Amino acid sequence: MDYQQLIEEVYHEVKSANPSGKVADYIPELASVDPNQFGMALVDLEGNIFGVGDYQVPFSIQSISKVHTLAMVAHVFKSKLWSRVNVEPSGNPFNSIAQLEFENGIPRNPFINAGALVITDALTSKFDNPIEEVSKFINEISGKECVQINQEVMDSELKHSERNTALGYFLKAYQNFDNKVEDVLKIYVAHCAMEMCCVDLARSFSFLANDGYSIYAKREIVTESMARRINALMLTCGFYDEAGEFAFRVGLPGKSGVGGGVAAVMPHKFSIAVWSPELNEKGNSVKAIMALELLTDKLKFSLF
Amino acid sequence: MDYQQLIEEVYHEVKSANPSGKVADYIPELASVDPNQFGMALVDLEGNIFGVGDYQVPFSIQSISKVHTLAMVAHVFKSKLWSRVNVEPSGNPFNSIAQLEFENGIPRNPFINAGALVITDALTSKFDNPIEEVSKFINEISGKECVQINQEVMDSELKHSERNTALGYFLKAYQNFDNKVEDVLKIYVAHCAMEMCCVDLARSFSFLANDGYSIYAKREIVTESMARRINALMLTCGFYDEAGEFAFRVGLPGKSGVGGGVAAVMPHKFSIAVWSPELNEKGNSVKAIMALELLTDKLKFSLF
Amino acid sequence: MDYQQLIEEVYHEVKSANPSGKVADYIPELASVDPNQFGMALVDLEGNIFGVGDYQVPFSIQSISKVHTLAMVAHVFKSKLWSRVNVEPSGNPFNSIAQLEFENGIPRNPFINAGALVITDALTSKFDNPIEEVSKFINEISGKECVQINQEVMDSELKHSERNTALGYFLKAYQNFDNKVEDVLKIYVAHCAMEMCCVDLARSFSFLANDGYSIYAKREIVTESMARRINALMLTCGFYDEAGEFAFRVGLPGKSGVGGGVAAVMPHKFSIAVWSPELNEKGNSVKAIMALELLTDKLKFSLF
Amino acid sequence: MDYQQLIEEVYHEVKSANPSGKVADYIPELASVDPNQFGMALVDLEGNIFGVGDYQVPFSIQSISKVHTLAMVAHVFKSKLWSRVNVEPSGNPFNSIAQLEFENGIPRNPFINAGALVITDALTSKFDNPIEEVSKFINEISGKECVQINQEVMDSELKHSERNTALGYFLKAYQNFDNKVEDVLKIYVAHCAMEMCCVDLARSFSFLANDGYSIYAKREIVTESMARRINALMLTCGFYDEAGEFAFRVGLPGKSGVGGGVAAVMPHKFSIAVWSPELNEKGNSVKAIMALELLTDKLKFSLF
Repeated sequence: MDYQQLIEEVYHEVKSANPSGKVADYIPELASVDPNQFGMALVDLEGNIFGVGDYQVPFSIQSISKVHTLAMVAHVFKSKLWSRVNVEPSGNPFNSIAQLEFENGIPRNPFINAGALVITDALTSKFDNPIEEVSKFINEISGKECVQINQEVMDSELKHSERNTALGYFLKAYQNFDNKVEDVLKIYVAHCAMEMCCVDLARSFSFLANDGYSIYAKREIVTESMARRINALMLTCGFYDEAGEFAFRVGLPGKSGVGGGVAAVMPHKFSIAVWSPELNEKGNSVKAIMALELLTDKLKFSLF
Repeated sequence: MDYQQLIEEVYHEVKSANPSGKVADYIPELASVDPNQFGMALVDLEGNIFGVGDYQVPFSIQSISKVHTLAMVAHVFKSKLWSRVNVEPSGNPFNSIAQLEFENGIPRNPFINAGALVITDALTSKFDNPIEEVSKFINEISGKECVQINQEVMDSELKHSERNTALGYFLKAYQNFDNKVEDVLKIYVAHCAMEMCCVDLARSFSFLANDGYSIYAKREIVTESMARRINALMLTCGFYDEAGEFAFRVGLPGKSGVGGGVAAVMPHKFSIAVWSPELNEKGNSVKAIMALELLTDKLKFSLF
Repeated sequence: MDYQQLIEEVYHEVKSANPSGKVADYIPELASVDPNQFGMALVDLEGNIFGVGDYQVPFSIQSISKVHTLAMVAHVFKSKLWSRVNVEPSGNPFNSIAQLEFENGIPRNPFINAGALVITDALTSKFDNPIEEVSKFINEISGKECVQINQEVMDSELKHSERNTALGYFLKAYQNFDNKVEDVLKIYVAHCAMEMCCVDLARSFSFLANDGYSIYAKREIVTESMARRINALMLTCGFYDEAGEFAFRVGLPGKSGVGGGVAAVMPHKFSIAVWSPELNEKGNSVKAIMALELLTDKLKFSLF
Repeated sequence: MDYQQLIEEVYHEVKSANPSGKVADYIPELASVDPNQFGMALVDLEGNIFGVGDYQVPFSIQSISKVHTLAMVAHVFKSKLWSRVNVEPSGNPFNSIAQLEFENGIPRNPFINAGALVITDALTSKFDNPIEEVSKFINEISGKECVQINQEVMDSELKHSERNTALGYFLKAYQNFDNKVEDVLKIYVAHCAMEMCCVDLARSFSFLANDGYSIYAKREIVTESMARRINALMLTCGFYDEAGEFAFRVGLPGKSGVGGGVAAVMPHKFSIAVWSPELNEKGNSVKAIMALELLTDKLKFSLF
């Protein structure tokens, strides 16, 4: 399989179809990104890199970081469910508070905002300097000092964090939040404000395609069983309320962010990151999703 | 891989752990089944059969038949979604009517009752004798005259079908139902009342492990792309409100029924059916789910 | 108090403000009504009649009939609540099925569709010829053979009754429905298809302004305590999801119908009926509501 | 009408029936109240006072204070609705956040917690020292320096205010909250922690029975029209999710608090306060509700 030729074909087909969407505009720092940027990077299990377009331009990874933070505390998920977060698809928008009330303060999964806040709360309890630890962890599994936290994005997100603050206090009302809401929120917006390029992001997801072992860190990041489980979770819950459609059309475990990035894995083959800022109405990058659909069509395989 | 040894190991481990649940009791015909029965059958892509326990005893396949009927009308699902049924996990019990109201009469997916009724409505429009056609189709893809419709189960289900009747009329109110509710309901309960043993059920799912081609029918049942999509749909939506947990713990596309059966596939490897009547509180067979979890643990692979 | 002068003043102010809305169009028979019609009739406790505009033109009373049918079975409501229907405002549209699911098949009150169907089900159990009995009852409390059932409206409503049929079957699924859904539905659409003019409608509500005693029937229709309770129920639940605003702005117990009618009472003073076909988006007559608000402003009293 | 004899009769009947409930226990200060206390005070329009039982013992008025704060900003409610709070019954528990999400940050009414927080936010914008102003206002309309803020209750409520904090931030996310959440919350818990006895509380509600004019303050507190509207609002929304039943059984506008108090008015006749700490499962005082039901039965009139 010539991966370089494959992603170039995909890249040009998407470029010529040129599907459009709307750049995230809830904070000015994201709204001002050049909407025409588009890049892809694929990394195989030996670490060979294939890239096309703007694949070396850093962008705001946003919710994709929820996979990294989950991996850092994944050992708490045992064969049975972790009591603080469920693993079911939500059937609701990512920032909904209603479902949290109906289900008594247990978030549906670690990728909706409420669930990711619980994960960040667990990180906050575990580490003295959680922000540094997250950066260090991602640098380690990417094999490179690549993570930059964009201070302006972080400050701006903090200023617009009323809804997440409400989720934090609501979790606290159900005794499902141990630290101060404001403290956890700072760590949460910090990891969402991390910037990486497609290559480094794909490298940081490599261990999930490789049964939990990172060729960069040269160690088992999570057990084989846990790697499979995180992949299952990405497949069922990784794309907000569009997870089913992504599984149906693309069939790869992946996670998207409102910065326009998507990171995905083909287990035992490769990890991939695609980025383009314009989003569909569910908040997922239109070009990235089209690219991944074309890719699995051309590969003639997906998970299934 | 010695599949016979594998499933025997799994069988004995489950037998000795002996997890218990509660047989479905909403109709007397299901309530009176011997709860201790337990069988598994695995069929590889060449058609080799491996079986253990009560794997040749016919049982009521119930909702598993929703996969068969979906396959019969799957051509209506194009690259874009079919307008009458969505492909998203529901996050609600299988027979909920509230979500259908919030989403204006478009069922979340074809495996919740409302969605399956729409599929059966489409079948009713397509065929003169839909019940015969469903039996004929399943016999064809199982390579055997194996399907029996249990008339008593069917009659009893019809007597307890108020909730499904309500769903049918509600779909009609949203112009998402073409035929008479009562007519479609008869066909729906008929296909749910079909009885098959584990071997035949596993054979009937074989085409989904084989890129859409049935070695029994000797033809492409659905396209490769559609086979992948049905598998994705089973993974995200096949186990009612427990789909996420099944994906997380087992990682195979599958479909369960309240008769205690589960049919699943390992794409490009095998299809499998497991049956034991006792259910957990989400309506899935406790022994079948435990067996499939052990199986993928021992195999050291799942989809992911 | 010169009631004739009062209602004429109100009539002319509303006419000159001329607020507009949209005639109900879910069935052709209602859609074709002349939207400019507007009439009011007020009846005091001695039976003196005051009328203005189209107050002698019969119109389709629709949901207002739910007060009449409730009065016919009101004896089942004891000091404690009746177990089959609650008396709480719903906070949801009148034909919502979601709330019925959340509250396990007990309708929130007798004026939303689900609750009115339970009342009609109770009527169906009580009488051999319920449609005749309803007509007879309303004629008796109006002091006149005034009720006409419009057969075309009735047939047309039956053809568009999928949603109410769904509600009926849903109630049956919760064992809160004793008769055949189709039978009850015929009686339900029959009483909704009754036509009366403002005068007769106001007369039929007179007993509710008079502690339960009808000067036309010359008997206690309901106990004093029950009359007060039905009035309380109209105040809290009589205007669909706009009941709070009607109580806030008008402050009289009343009941509206999609035919554009509103019947209301000022306890110990008078009953009143107002009719004009154009509806606001909540389904209540814009002119009737404006008229009643002006009326209580001019009277300088409401309940409160 | 001999009011003293009336309330004594009611008092003794309730005492001998002795219905029981459960004292609020979410903060220790409320949990430790003597549950057997029970008092009533009725004040007629001339200011005559009738009392029985523990009618001079101060208790925590809690949510009853929401009527006082509403009156302080009531001028913002015009003939049309105020855009920041609706006037519809909620059909949900008083502290639900789900409904707020479904209705885009506009609370259903000013008596559920979210609505009361918006009212307190408006107070905070209006006054430099809102807590003092609330005390001053209530003292004025009671004709007496009677209000005490219990500092321990206030501190304890603040410590248990995660859910209200979540509501505040959620309102802020919808741009329906102007001040700092923590600042408003302090004022909110302060007015909920006010202590008054039945006599003073009944006096403070007197203007609502008197078309808005307070005989103590010797001025119009709210317009006649607004007094009627606040009464309508209390009738439809004053008792959490039990408002319909209270209207049905008692038929007086009123407001309850989890301290076990209820204040109510019979327009143009009297205001009344009843207190007993044991609550039913909806959070309303069992003895107070029983007393008011007996009272209106004996009076042979309610609003209706």
